Amino acid sequence: MSEGIIARYRSYLPITENTPALTLHEGDTPLIRAEQLSATLGIDLYLKVEGFNPTGSFKDRGMVMAMAKAVEEGSQTVICASTGNTSASAAAFAARMGIRCIVVIPDGHVALGKLSQAVVYGAEVIAIEGNFDQALEMVREIAAESEITLVNSVNPYRIEGQKTAAFEVCDQLGEAPDILAIPVGNAGNISAYWKGFCEYKDHGKITRLPRMYGFEAEGAAAIVRGKRIEHPETIATAIRIGNPASWETAVLAARDSGGFIDSVTDDEIVEAYRQLASKEGVFCEPASAASVAGVKKRVQQGEIPSGTQVVCVLTGNGLKDPSTAMDAVQVKPIKVSCDKEAVFQAVRGKGEATCGKF
Amino acid sequence: MSEGIIARYRSYLPITENTPALTLHEGDTPLIRAEQLSATLGIDLYLKVEGFNPTGSFKDRGMVMAMAKAVEEGSQTVICASTGNTSASAAAFAARMGIRCIVVIPDGHVALGKLSQAVVYGAEVIAIEGNFDQALEMVREIAAESEITLVNSVNPYRIEGQKTAAFEVCDQLGEAPDILAIPVGNAGNISAYWKGFCEYKDHGKITRLPRMYGFEAEGAAAIVRGKRIEHPETIATAIRIGNPASWETAVLAARDSGGFIDSVTDDEIVEAYRQLASKEGVFCEPASAASVAGVKKRVQQGEIPSGTQVVCVLTGNGLKDPSTAMDAVQVKPIKVSCDKEAVFQAVRGKGEATCGKF
Repeated sequence: MSEGIIARYRSYLPITENTPALTLHEGDTPLIRAEQLSATLGIDLYLKVEGFNPTGSFKDRGMVMAMAKAVEEGSQTVICASTGNTSASAAAFAARMGIRCIVVIPDGHVALGKLSQAVVYGAEVIAIEGNFDQALEMVREIAAESEITLVNSVNPYRIEGQKTAAFEVCDQLGEAPDILAIPVGNAGNISAYWKGFCEYKDHGKITRLPRMYGFEAEGAAAIVRGKRIEHPETIATAIRIGNPASWETAVLAARDSGGFIDSVTDDEIVEAYRQLASKEGVFCEPASAASVAGVKKRVQQGEIPSGTQVVCVLTGNGLKDPSTAMDAVQVKPIKVSCDKEAVFQAVRGKGEATCGKF
Repeated sequence: MSEGIIARYRSYLPITENTPALTLHEGDTPLIRAEQLSATLGIDLYLKVEGFNPTGSFKDRGMVMAMAKAVEEGSQTVICASTGNTSASAAAFAARMGIRCIVVIPDGHVALGKLSQAVVYGAEVIAIEGNFDQALEMVREIAAESEITLVNSVNPYRIEGQKTAAFEVCDQLGEAPDILAIPVGNAGNISAYWKGFCEYKDHGKITRLPRMYGFEAEGAAAIVRGKRIEHPETIATAIRIGNPASWETAVLAARDSGGFIDSVTDDEIVEAYRQLASKEGVFCEPASAASVAGVKKRVQQGEIPSGTQVVCVLTGNGLKDPSTAMDAVQVKPIKVSCDKEAVFQAVRGKGEATCGKF
């Protein structure tokens, strides 16, 4: 089992002897080769499956650091704005440390699984009639005017924890990949990975740096369009953000690495999402599939040469958002009576239609 | 990351040179000490968190074996009955191997997360107007009359894979615990753990065996009552089973180990479920909490001495069943307008009410 990122990467993190040894066994997530997609696209494609983290998303890496440091510094209460994954993670680590957690979410735009996590972990959930960007603005002001600790990714410890995912990719491959592709929402994660790769190179753990390819959802592509989006819209709720907090560092990461930030449509996201589950056996949340959708598009445009080694970050677990899953796939169970022949008929009929045997 | 149970425990499993090296990085799940519950109950309590498996439940351990052997033996199609976790796991591994998967579920009684998994992984889902026990009877007959491979736990490879969880508990603790507590539904898992402990003792890896404590849900407590239950009912859908397939081996495991099979009420399950999330930071599915609910009850009855080392198996991830989570907790987000003062007021008001500061 994972020993946790603080224990594993201690020397790369701002840890002191007073930092609590907090962990829910985050990190050390699988890097799975996408066998079918690699064959189809003619590249060497790996999936960094961050849904294996304790609350089901990459957020746990940064949150364990932010929460440990908040407690070290004497904080009794933390606050965050969230599209869902941040709040789930904050709520879990706050519960583990026995401190108060307040989460502010955009009402009606947080996936059911994520909302249930925050509530069951015991966070106080405040739903505002506004979007994520407005929620973030509020919690920043509230934290500035009180002794409450802000644990959004503007908290620098978050990025410190999140950079460990880049370390792991290098440890797992033995070197940095040619390309690291990643969904871009609030833009903290692409910044964190780039920081991680650069630090690992500085420490001589790798000899080269990857190109960073970030992908926003088209309906929330503020960086691609070069302007804030007042009303971001996308099926990928985790990246439904119109004014990314880490905008500048994300742009620098893309530029300095020789990469770019691009966007993908909801249709492209859903197609990649389905393929990942039904061809690779990996169920991620829709936002996660933006990385794969983007790589597919760029390969099809002839911009990623055959044989290129690409790691796509899958940021969260598909179980976070079961309703979107069912809607996206548009396949319903076949309903039959409680009768063996009826079931046999359903098996046989479908079998003949699909592959001629069963 | 986990190398997978086939690679890790190869010498303990019926693997041949023709068995595919299948894995989705199942196994090697965390054993987390329940700090708060240990202190409250006066015992040394650990949680084996099986929700970290790739499809979010312990089923992945048995399914990777069943699927690898099915493919080794030339099967093109697998079938199972399921309350949800088995079908999610079967669908994922079948997708990975590129074979057809048919799942038969009781209509209306499978949690949304689990249903979404089976559908998105590309399984053919048949929902019958009946319960799990009837679904299992049907798929057994269909498998017997066709070339379709049955991958329910009556498939002996399932138990072989599942027993690896007992190996891990021993590897993680350095010895078997005093007590292994586990939810009982179809009763395959308690049988598998016992098999694992016995084999590890035979191989000299441990020097003693744990007592096995199994807990059914009261509304589905066939073994406790000593008779089939025609209409099992419980909030814990994963163990809503009235005629356990592994009934006899479960009874033997309990008896031979000096343990027992008991039941817990839905209220006891929900209380344990909430405590695990809000005090330990571990979000499991309701059925999983039956193990902790049972241990709490037995401690309160004075039947588990102070200091006893207990491992509770948490069989599945809380994200599997978000609707039950929300209903069980009965806490709703506080809704406010998009206004900083309104949010500040919600934070302050709640803070004063709960702990007098923020």
